[in-house]
Amino acid sequence: MTTTLADVRTTNLAVVLRHLRTHGPSSRAAIAASTGLTKATVSSLTGDLIGHRLLHETGQAGNRIGRPATVLALDGSAYAAIGVQVATDRLTALAVDYSGDQLLLWHRAFDGSPARAGAGRAVSAIIALAQRAATRVRQQGRHVLGLTVAVPGLVTAEGAVRLSPALGWSDLDLRELVAGSLRQDDLAVTVANHAALAAVAELRHGGHAGVADLTYLTGAAGIEAGLIVEGRPLHGFRGFTGQAGRIAMGAADASTWADRAGIEPLVRRALPDFDPEALSDLAPAADQVAALARSGDAHVLGVLREAGGHLGRGLAVLANLVNPEVFVLGDHFASLATWLIPPAAAELERHTLAPAAGGARIVASSLGLHAAALGGAVSHLDHVDTGRIPRVAVSA
Amino acid sequence: MTTTLADVRTTNLAVVLRHLRTHGPSSRAAIAASTGLTKATVSSLTGDLIGHRLLHETGQAGNRIGRPATVLALDGSAYAAIGVQVATDRLTALAVDYSGDQLLLWHRAFDGSPARAGAGRAVSAIIALAQRAATRVRQQGRHVLGLTVAVPGLVTAEGAVRLSPALGWSDLDLRELVAGSLRQDDLAVTVANHAALAAVAELRHGGHAGVADLTYLTGAAGIEAGLIVEGRPLHGFRGFTGQAGRIAMGAADASTWADRAGIEPLVRRALPDFDPEALSDLAPAADQVAALARSGDAHVLGVLREAGGHLGRGLAVLANLVNPEVFVLGDHFASLATWLIPPAAAELERHTLAPAAGGARIVASSLGLHAAALGGAVSHLDHVDTGRIPRVAVSA
Repeated sequence: MTTTLADVRTTNLAVVLRHLRTHGPSSRAAIAASTGLTKATVSSLTGDLIGHRLLHETGQAGNRIGRPATVLALDGSAYAAIGVQVATDRLTALAVDYSGDQLLLWHRAFDGSPARAGAGRAVSAIIALAQRAATRVRQQGRHVLGLTVAVPGLVTAEGAVRLSPALGWSDLDLRELVAGSLRQDDLAVTVANHAALAAVAELRHGGHAGVADLTYLTGAAGIEAGLIVEGRPLHGFRGFTGQAGRIAMGAADASTWADRAGIEPLVRRALPDFDPEALSDLAPAADQVAALARSGDAHVLGVLREAGGHLGRGLAVLANLVNPEVFVLGDHFASLATWLIPPAAAELERHTLAPAAGGARIVASSLGLHAAALGGAVSHLDHVDTGRIPRVAVSA
Repeated sequence: MTTTLADVRTTNLAVVLRHLRTHGPSSRAAIAASTGLTKATVSSLTGDLIGHRLLHETGQAGNRIGRPATVLALDGSAYAAIGVQVATDRLTALAVDYSGDQLLLWHRAFDGSPARAGAGRAVSAIIALAQRAATRVRQQGRHVLGLTVAVPGLVTAEGAVRLSPALGWSDLDLRELVAGSLRQDDLAVTVANHAALAAVAELRHGGHAGVADLTYLTGAAGIEAGLIVEGRPLHGFRGFTGQAGRIAMGAADASTWADRAGIEPLVRRALPDFDPEALSDLAPAADQVAALARSGDAHVLGVLREAGGHLGRGLAVLANLVNPEVFVLGDHFASLATWLIPPAAAELERHTLAPAAGGARIVASSLGLHAAALGGAVSHLDHVDTGRIPRVAVSA
């Protein structure tokens, strides 16, 4: 019931940081006018943030009346955060600085299919990539605030992979392994489900800022749903939400939504002559499917139409249960969205009780194959934006 | 960003009311000690609440040290709220006073099946029951704070029934019709989905107070889910959530979860000789099924086992997507729970990716066939408990 002065200051720091995150560079007077804080308070808060190198002065803005005002902006030079995304066919590392600019985006070939790679080798590859990304960011003079590893499957609140059928992992304490190898006490390391992280990235960077109820669908290893409810990820009792790919689609053959509408079965049906070994990297295969569709290949168009219909029938289960405003098709679904969305939208509407699919629309992600890495990295910036200023010494 | 003195007083009134709702009768000193408010503030607040007849003094509590303290309790004598629950086979009216005591519980036979009753006659019956309940409560000297009608299907935020397959209604502005006929300006009338209201009642009265993620399943007209997420109903984009009965269970015959596991098909399979006309009231039929199961009837036990398995497979879809801690089987499911839960739990666990069904357990509702009516009534008490004191003159 009690609020301390320190709490108030934390809240006010968060108000200033969020103002600049949302509105871009602003004068102290503009911050005060927009937030309701006094100019003296804003000066004190921004002085503190400049001292911690979270803000910097960027010049002067002309004002129609009065003298020009100094403009403040988020400072990207001192801090950064990293996301590492694990798929069955590739690893992605992405770093953003505190102002939100992308510092690096690396893809690495990776064999994460359960049949071939052991967890040990896979974890070593993840750690090596994370270390290289952290080293690069530090060489640029930035302090790494945090690192998040995005994985498919069930992840506990402590960052252990409880079960990931796509990767063949169970009870793997990935957070502990990564944090232990990075050996940096003030670096926050987290592990989370890739769909949930991608959904957070969509809200913030995918052009869906005002959307409270959004569902992101992974189009890589199986199909998982990142469910945003009232602007926040749906966590559930143990954090094991969004396992949409397991929805049964037919009693007779026990096939699931992921079997019928997933990207890997789609590519296999569309490209029957494709070398199965080459499917260890889905991107060129998905590109080839898109090229054939663009050229009017009847077989491929038929496969896409059928997969789109199955996609829509699974989306209808989600629409009937959680009634989102937007379904975002992620990963390889996005590159095939031109052909998948029309049949999916028709089946979604046909199988949803609410008229017009409860208002839901289906869109392609604009964040490419690294939405989850982006969501993982920005989660650490969000933490600072709540007013919790990093307690590390950064040389100016 | 600004907080007025009136806001602070409203918040503090809510703190006092919620303390008494949760802890029962308490002295002013105990309220002050528990809430962190000063004794002077508590005296002022409780004086105000006694003046509005929301609290009363109930006597003195002996204290081990010092003089006996006057004990305050919620006052049930001045205000009440009503819930009216619409099913295909019956109407239920329930009233509770402000202290939470049940004032009346009426059931009325009702033919709400789409094939037989027109919406006009059904609405007249609902209004007649609501009026009779309101009259009875007023005859007892209580002011009716609000009335909620609980219906199956899609209900808009404005209380219009957008679509109710169970009742055969679409675009029926039920709130407007009921409010118009009750003609009392200070009576809040709302209409909401029965599963969502029942889920709220389960949290508050069903012994699941600490559960943040709970899913209630209606076992009357079809199967609908009342989804509680982080302690609050899942609303979605347009409020059209929880349509679980439409989950497809087999591609070949296009049958749904409600077809396979719903109460009405279960009763028809269990009692093939049952007069279909008599099914307009499901309660005696469900009782007969339970009696036959208790007597060891092999056919009925087989039907229950099969229905329970289907029930569990549908629950697994929910468990995989929203990972609740508790599934509450409502209405007639509750009276058959002894036989439905074991096969349902086995199939739930088998079809949920997370181990042990993500921690979910299946329980029978203890709130009988009127959970939604109770949820509707208490929603108006909750509104007062937020510190919004009714602005009506109540004769003392």
